[in-house]
Parts: sequence; structure tokens; C-alpha cells
Amino acid sequence: MTPQGTSLIGQRAVTGDQAVIRPIDPASGEALAPEYPGLDRHAVAEACQLAEEALTTYRETSLEERASFLETIAAEIEALGDALVERAMAETGLPRARIEGERGRTCGQLRLFASVVRAGEWLDVRIDPALPDRQPMPRVDLRQRHVALGPVAVFGASNFPLAFSVAGGDTASALAAGCPVVVKAHSAHPGTSELVGRAVQKAVASCGLPEGVFSLLFGSGKEIGQALVADPHIQAVGFTGSRNGGLALMATAQARPQPIPVYAEMSSINPVFLLPEALQARAKEIAEGFIGSLNMGAGQFCTNPGLVIAIKGEALDAFTAAAGEAVKGSAAQTMLTPGIHAAYDDGVSQLAGEAREIARGSASEGPHQCQAALFATSSADFLANAALQAEVFGAASLLIECEDLAEMRAVAEQLEGQLTATLQMDDGDLDAARTLLPVLERKAGRVLANGWPTGVEVCHAMVHGGPFPATSDSRTTSVGSAAIHRFLRPVCYQNLPEGLLPEALKEGNPLGVTRLVDGKRD
Amino acid sequence: MTPQGTSLIGQRAVTGDQAVIRPIDPASGEALAPEYPGLDRHAVAEACQLAEEALTTYRETSLEERASFLETIAAEIEALGDALVERAMAETGLPRARIEGERGRTCGQLRLFASVVRAGEWLDVRIDPALPDRQPMPRVDLRQRHVALGPVAVFGASNFPLAFSVAGGDTASALAAGCPVVVKAHSAHPGTSELVGRAVQKAVASCGLPEGVFSLLFGSGKEIGQALVADPHIQAVGFTGSRNGGLALMATAQARPQPIPVYAEMSSINPVFLLPEALQARAKEIAEGFIGSLNMGAGQFCTNPGLVIAIKGEALDAFTAAAGEAVKGSAAQTMLTPGIHAAYDDGVSQLAGEAREIARGSASEGPHQCQAALFATSSADFLANAALQAEVFGAASLLIECEDLAEMRAVAEQLEGQLTATLQMDDGDLDAARTLLPVLERKAGRVLANGWPTGVEVCHAMVHGGPFPATSDSRTTSVGSAAIHRFLRPVCYQNLPEGLLPEALKEGNPLGVTRLVDGKRD
Repeated sequence: MTPQGTSLIGQRAVTGDQAVIRPIDPASGEALAPEYPGLDRHAVAEACQLAEEALTTYRETSLEERASFLETIAAEIEALGDALVERAMAETGLPRARIEGERGRTCGQLRLFASVVRAGEWLDVRIDPALPDRQPMPRVDLRQRHVALGPVAVFGASNFPLAFSVAGGDTASALAAGCPVVVKAHSAHPGTSELVGRAVQKAVASCGLPEGVFSLLFGSGKEIGQALVADPHIQAVGFTGSRNGGLALMATAQARPQPIPVYAEMSSINPVFLLPEALQARAKEIAEGFIGSLNMGAGQFCTNPGLVIAIKGEALDAFTAAAGEAVKGSAAQTMLTPGIHAAYDDGVSQLAGEAREIARGSASEGPHQCQAALFATSSADFLANAALQAEVFGAASLLIECEDLAEMRAVAEQLEGQLTATLQMDDGDLDAARTLLPVLERKAGRVLANGWPTGVEVCHAMVHGGPFPATSDSRTTSVGSAAIHRFLRPVCYQNLPEGLLPEALKEGNPLGVTRLVDGKRD
Repeated sequence: MTPQGTSLIGQRAVTGDQAVIRPIDPASGEALAPEYPGLDRHAVAEACQLAEEALTTYRETSLEERASFLETIAAEIEALGDALVERAMAETGLPRARIEGERGRTCGQLRLFASVVRAGEWLDVRIDPALPDRQPMPRVDLRQRHVALGPVAVFGASNFPLAFSVAGGDTASALAAGCPVVVKAHSAHPGTSELVGRAVQKAVASCGLPEGVFSLLFGSGKEIGQALVADPHIQAVGFTGSRNGGLALMATAQARPQPIPVYAEMSSINPVFLLPEALQARAKEIAEGFIGSLNMGAGQFCTNPGLVIAIKGEALDAFTAAAGEAVKGSAAQTMLTPGIHAAYDDGVSQLAGEAREIARGSASEGPHQCQAALFATSSADFLANAALQAEVFGAASLLIECEDLAEMRAVAEQLEGQLTATLQMDDGDLDAARTLLPVLERKAGRVLANGWPTGVEVCHAMVHGGPFPATSDSRTTSVGSAAIHRFLRPVCYQNLPEGLLPEALKEGNPLGVTRLVDGKRD
């Protein structure tokens, strides 16, 4: 299959007539065919109307039907074969191993949600049986399950062309919850988006589902995205991208006659605390791990370690020297888009104006190349300058030099919300870690010891989330099985006759799901 | 104990110096002593700062300590004895049985949350153990638990002076989640609020908790409430009240540098659908049940049945006649405040201008009396006039006369979000109910058959929530054990040494809580 340059509205392929998205190969700067003419507002409304029409059927599909649909999507993506891998490589400048790994992650994620759907924990079934003889008043029969929120708008991210894009975590978890999905494709990888969109479209048809379960929209400006979030049928939004982009969608969602939740994953600098014993024992090893994590994917990860905090001294000098050497030895890497590259260069210039340069990586003559950068500053300067907390998307990091542990803690306390916080620690650092942990738990969705924040496992215990501005809603995660809860709401059924009860709540537990009966797990 | 006219900031009693709240007995219109001088913004900031300082200790109290604190609050409220009952009766005009019942509900609710805390399901413990030999990449050890969001602002409601006020559902669930609470007292029952506040304050002290776990603030205008929601330490808001009040708090919460969740329970007209067979078989009985529910507490319930939908015909005529008779026989009842009474009279006048009056209840010469009211209109008029969906807080209801089931469904589809939707149905109505149910599930948090929406059981399966404008967040409930989830967020711990792990996540499950291990419930 080759990309055709079309949006997908239900089962139709639609060619827009608005401003055109022109994909390029960021490694060469050359144009890629085809172009993607954008849609207008009427097309957005049409996709949302179809999603609304699909909801009643789709949200009541059986656990098996829905799980099997998710598995079919995975199989259809795999069936795209090398055409998908090559197109994604061309549109992103990312290497084959990364794209193949990401395809594996994307399909694994769909299959994980299939297993989550089948297990049925997400229904959160609760039954409080009637107590007709209770004094002073009888209790009626009360049963709760969770239902789909409604049609969901998903915004593909630029930095994971598969795993956080058309059939990525947001789409997989929304579909798992029983929500039809309307995706606004990211303009950075339209061909990849269309190929994956056609795989989903095919799965909708082969599973006999209503066509409105999935649509994929292209639009070059912000209008299509804003219209999508404003559409009255849309009931929730999943977004991964910049802080400004997320804030704009949050504002639109709140200004609707009926406000809706926005799950925006926005901005994080992922502080890494080097505790004294660990720094003393293995400064060089930690420095190498750090720069490895920093350079991964040209630093274009939400979990890129953009801040390192340590106490001054010989051990830190050794770390800084080793990290500086590693940065100097870092080859330039192609960034995802000209816009991301320009923003990276701007961010690095700002850091250079505010902090001391430790090292820069190799320059390159190709277009859109990320030249790694490491800066340092004192904790006093960091605490006095909120601008130093701004995310620089790419392989740039800032080292904060503290006088003592109390200053490290002061830095931690002043941090904005984060996706992750990391402790590099040895056995002798336990007390120091205990001092920091209560602060870090409040700042971040994930706390790590002796690892690096890049590399987000898709599993049940993962939290890829965190307090604002890391995300718009710290109560949730966008990676892992708990992501399904973002698209559900509880409904209580009081005294309904058995013939009217949803399957999940019927006597005898026909779905075999875990239930809380009278407050006890059965 | 008698009320002193003070706010409570931590363990101190504080007399404000701003505009004064002058409590009255709404039954007589007479003033009640003492007066409550309002606080200023500095006092709000002080209470929030104390809450912040209390958080680190309080959120890590053991399950037993926290449960026992909730039980101590219940015991302290009971220990207030008749002084509390009499003060609440005087301030609200509600009868003794209602206040005593509500006290039982309030203390029962605190004890329910104690049992929820002990059971530990709310921790949502998830463990994905390390898989060092996994190919192509090993998996690290990942563990998740839920932690308290942070200090919570609670706004007491006027219509439940105990159960939705100072130590009501919002406070109980926030404290259960490990969040310190700062309550803005409702000006309609300040003495009741102070008495209950002192009971909580006493429990904080006797349980040896940091004083900032609880504060109670008085302020006569909107400034104190807005300052509270804007305070940077506050991390979530619980509110029960008017649509305008809730919208104002939502706007303040969104405009903060760090937006926070607002759980506002606002406005609902609680449609009741009379299905044909049931109406045919028991028009008079249904009419009596309806008016009983309508008149309960002078209709001052969020779940008051403000809308009845049925198909025209003889059976509906019989229902209307019987309901009209029952309304005519309804005695006037004292409303909670002059403001609520004035708003009720305005709302009834508006309905009188748009719909046909069926009956009014007895008039009364006392002040602030609710004179029950029943109106009727055609489904065509209802569908054409959004103003007919406005909540009239009090014993007023509107009957919608439809031509057929399709029109009933059209009415259902046009409804705004609701707390409840009710079906009056007999066996022969199953098909009609199946037509409506998918619509009602999307509109309401609770769907009832053959009951009345007033009377909200405090249990595990309850949902007192629903789509906007019933609440600001349909993903939650403000009544029942699931209300605790509003004040929690997940944190993932990656590869932490055993000595640093929270108790809930340690090897061997020392808390004995239910856990999801590798996706399976253990």
C-alpha cells in the first residue's frame, strides 16, 4: 500500500480542499509525495457525527468483540510490512531499528489493551444488594459499572510516529474503553498516519463495526484541531505535544457549553538527582548513562533528562568532565521537523545566555541536525530564574550545582510538575533519598532509582503522567493499562429488573469479572 | 458546647474582622446569635499554608491511624448531642427527624470511609516485577500506588447542613484519601458549621495529627471562596451548590498558573419517564409517590424530580389529576434561606409564564415558605425551549406530554446532563425501557426503575454524579466510597530499593491489600 494523500472519514477516503500539508524527509530536506490537502470544518463535523452514531453500538460490543477488534488493528498494522517502516523512516529521520521497535510497541500496546478489555477490571463492577429488612430504612439494589465517555479526539504526536500517533496509546485506550476515535493526524508524518489509519479502517470493516468508530483528519493549521475539540459530540481529548498546544486545547475544551476533559501530555524536564555516595562511587559510569539517555532519539522524548542536580565537589567535577567528554563525542542527529530543530536551537541559545556551557556535540552540515548541549549553573541561580525550567525539546541538559543536600531539596521543591524524577543512589544514600522522596512523589508521576527516565514500559503499573505542566491531569496516565480509565465514567443502576441490566451487572456474573459486592472483592 | 462566632484555623479559634454573617431562623425570620465576622485573604493563606505543612505527615499516616481519625470525628460529632441538632434545626427550618437522620448519615459516612481506608483498595496497588531475562529488552521492576492529591478546599452546601457540609461527603472522602481539608462554611448555617468544625478540630488534636489537617473559614461574600480556590497550595475543590457558583469556581481553578480539578455538583432536574404499562396500571400510586418525592425537604434536593415525561391519554389524565390533587394538598414548608426562597419564587414564575399550571400547594403566611407547584407542557414546546430545562430548586416540577414513545426518546436525547433518570415501568414496558436506557445512561449518573430519585444511599455502588451541568466531572461521584478517587493520583516507582518503597508496595504485601500483579489480581 502507498499513501494516497487522503483523510479517512469512516470508510471513505476524502481529499480535502484546504491548505496543503507537504511532507518532507527531514534528513535531506526533500519533499515527499503525496501532498495532503487539509479538510474544512464540515468534514470535521461529519466525522464527529459518524462517531456519535457509532457510539451506541460500539460501546456495547462484547468484551470479546472489542478485544478482537484491537488485535485485528495490530495485525493490519503488521500486514503493512516494510512499506510502513520505510515511510516512517523517510518522514521522521529515525533509524530502522527505532521504527521497527516502535511498531512492535504499538502492536503490543493494542494487544495489551485487548487483554485488559477481556479481563474486565475496567468495568469496576460494584454491587450493593437490596436489604429489604434493614432498619430504619430498607436498602434498594444498587449496581455500578463504567461506560464509555463518548467520542474521543486524539492528536498524534510528532516524536512517536507510531506509538503516540494514529493507533498509539490514546487511540488504543479510548477504543478499549468503547469510545469511537477521531484522530487529527500530526503534519510531520502524514503518509505514516494515512497508512496506519487505513489499517484501522480495514479492521473496523472486517470486524463488522459501524464505520464511525474511526476517522483520520488532516489539516495544516490549528483550525481543524480546534474545531474537533469544540465539536459537541466529542467528549474527551488525548494530546501529546507542546505546552502551548496543550494549553490551547484545554482553553477550547473549557470554553465549550459543555466542558470536557483534556488529557494533554505537555512539558517535562525530568530531573535526575545524583546522590553523594553514588556520585562518589561511579561518577563516570553515571555520566555515560546520562549522556546515553540524553542523546537517545536526538533527545526528542518527553522523558529526556533535561536537569541534573548534584552537590559540588571532586566527584561532581569527575562527573562533569566525563559527561562533557561524552557530549563532545556525540554525533549530530537529524531532528523530526524543521520547527522542532529551530525551537531546539532557540532553547539552547537561551540556556547559553543564562548558564555556563560545559560542552557541545559535533556540528553537522546536514539540515535539521541536533547538536547535543550540556550547561551548568548554581542552585542559587536556578532557584532565582524560573526560565531555567523551560523544556528544551532535544538533547540539551542543565546541571545544577548545589552546596549541600538541603539545596538539592530546595531545588526539588521549586520544580514544576514532571513526568519523572530519578535518583542515582547507592546503599549509603538511603537517608538522602528518604529526604527527597516525599517531594519527588508530589512533583512527578514516576520516580526511578538508578535508571534513566527514557524508555517507558507499557505495562499495568506504569504512570506516564504527572502534575501540571507535565500533563493537564495528574490523576491519569497516558501509557499502560490504566490509561483506559481516562475514557470511562461510572453509572449506577438502581433496582433495575434483570432483563434491563447490562451483562456486566447481571446475577450470576455472566462475564466472570471481578466485582466489589457489599464492599468485598468476590 | 455553644457556637462562639469564630473561624477555626488549625487548632486556633479566630475571629475575623471583615463583613459579618448574621444567621437567621428561616422559619421565623429572626436573628440567631452569635454573628460570624468574615476572615480576610491573609487568614485563607494561613489556613492553606498549615494544610500544606500537614500534608507530608498526614498523607503517610497508616491505614489504621487514618481510619481511626475518621471514626473519632464521627464520635465527636455524636458527642455534641442535642446542641447540634437544635442549632441545625434553628438555622435551617428542617424538622428534628430530618436533622437526626442526617447526623446518622454523616457519621455513617465517616465510618464507611474508615472501612474503605482500612481495606486499601483505593491504593490501587499494581506490581509488574522485573523480568531481567526478557528479550529483546529486560523489564525493570515497576510498582504503582495512589497518593493524596494535596490540600483540598471544600464548600459546604446549604441543603444538607451536616451530610454535605463541614464534615460531609467531600470532607470525609478527602480526609480518607490523605488530603488535609480547608472548609469554606456555608453562610446559611454558621453555628452548625462551627460546632461540627470544633468536633473535627478536637479529633485532629486527640489523634495527634498536625493541626493543618483541618481548618474552617467564614466569609460573607465570594472573595474568601475565590481566594481559597486560587491559593497555590490547594490541589482540588469539592463543591455542592448552584450552577453559577460552580462555574465561577471552575473558572478560577482553570485560570490558576497550575489548573486544578473542581468537583462541582450543580444542577439537575432528574427526569422521570412514566412508561405506558406502568402508567396504565398504577397512575394514582405513581402520582402519589411522585408528589411525596417532590415535597420531601421542600424539594431542596439535588435529586428532586423536576421533570416528568409521559405519553398523552387517559392514563396520563388520571396521573395528572391525582398529582394535581396531591399538590393542592401539600402544606407549605419553610425553605432554607431567604435567597433560596426568592429564587424558587422566580423560577416558578418563569415556569408559569412558559407552561400550563396544573396545581399549586397551600399558601402560607410565614416567611420563606415553599408553595409546591406542578406545571405541564407539550413535548414540542419543551424541545423548542431550552429555558424549560433550568433547575427550579424547590418543590416544583414540569410534566412533558408526548405523542408517543419516539417523542419521549426525543425529549431524553435533548436533556442536559443529570444526576438521575428514572423509569416507572412494568413488565410490559421492557422494550420501551430498552429504547430509552442507552440515552439515559449517557445523560445521568444513576438510572432508577420504580423508585424516586430522592434518597441517595451511601454505599459502594452509588454514583451521585453525572454529565455537565449535573456536575463538572462525570468521571466521579460525590457520594459513596468511590468518592475517594477524586482526591488521589497514581505514582509509579521504578526499581526502588526495598528500603525506599512505601509500605503498600513492599515485598510480601505487609498491608495485606488487594494487588494487580503482572495484570492478575492476587
